[in-house]
Amino acid sequence: MDSDDILPNLPGQRLQRGVCRALRQLDFVSVEELVPTPGLRVDVMALGPKGEVWIIECKSSRADYRADQKWRGYLEWCDRFFWAVDGNFPTDLLPEGSGLIIADAYDAALVRMGADTPLSAARRKVMLQKFARHAASRLQGYRDPVMAGLLI
Amino acid sequence: MDSDDILPNLPGQRLQRGVCRALRQLDFVSVEELVPTPGLRVDVMALGPKGEVWIIECKSSRADYRADQKWRGYLEWCDRFFWAVDGNFPTDLLPEGSGLIIADAYDAALVRMGADTPLSAARRKVMLQKFARHAASRLQGYRDPVMAGLLI
Repeated sequence: MDSDDILPNLPGQRLQRGVCRALRQLDFVSVEELVPTPGLRVDVMALGPKGEVWIIECKSSRADYRADQKWRGYLEWCDRFFWAVDGNFPTDLLPEGSGLIIADAYDAALVRMGADTPLSAARRKVMLQKFARHAASRLQGYRDPVMAGLLI
Repeated sequence: MDSDDILPNLPGQRLQRGVCRALRQLDFVSVEELVPTPGLRVDVMALGPKGEVWIIECKSSRADYRADQKWRGYLEWCDRFFWAVDGNFPTDLLPEGSGLIIADAYDAALVRMGADTPLSAARRKVMLQKFARHAASRLQGYRDPVMAGLLI
């Protein structure tokens, strides 16, 4: 930990940070809050070295998990789907066989792989394009703050 | 202009900023300093709404332009190639028919389109993946400064 290591405010954001750090160690890059289709917003979308597309939903509590009515809608937008929860989360609640990551704000451990359900080539191309535009748009907002309001 | 509008230090970086702002108005997102292949580093790589890949080299002076021995090497990594220069640059020096953008730190004007030389599908996929990884990696460095040293 160093002086730059300022904790995100929200529990879910802390999980997201740890998940993204751990994914980088697996050579996956990631973005947060990507919208694959109107009405859906994923916590973390990760892109692997071979073009793998993973979605990770971060749940900070039982209530947070129970409130999510949309998660099955994420499955068609990724090759693998994972839940990320902290070490106190009752993982028995999660659907059997779904991917599982145990996380905190600093790191994460990939406990169980999500089922491999490869995207079609056409959808993979669309997702890669969405990922690239999301990442570059937000990056430009940091590089050039005048542009930060012009998210696409 | 507002209080966030801090000028980049180097003349070339100022052109890059203006170019990236103008590209956004054309619905292109962009990254700076992408390496398409070892030994080449492009000033700006832009990704259009239909997946178009443009490379823009920013030249702040005649000497800066004359020192660039590598520009022909960029052509095979993009659909269109452009020079970006300021309003005082002697544009007669530039190769005939190459794309031309006149820029300053705040904006830019696309004066002449670069020739359309479409990438192969395989290379387009590679470039999109490189673009996505570059953008997401640097974005993560801003979101989570602890990770900024781990560029890929």
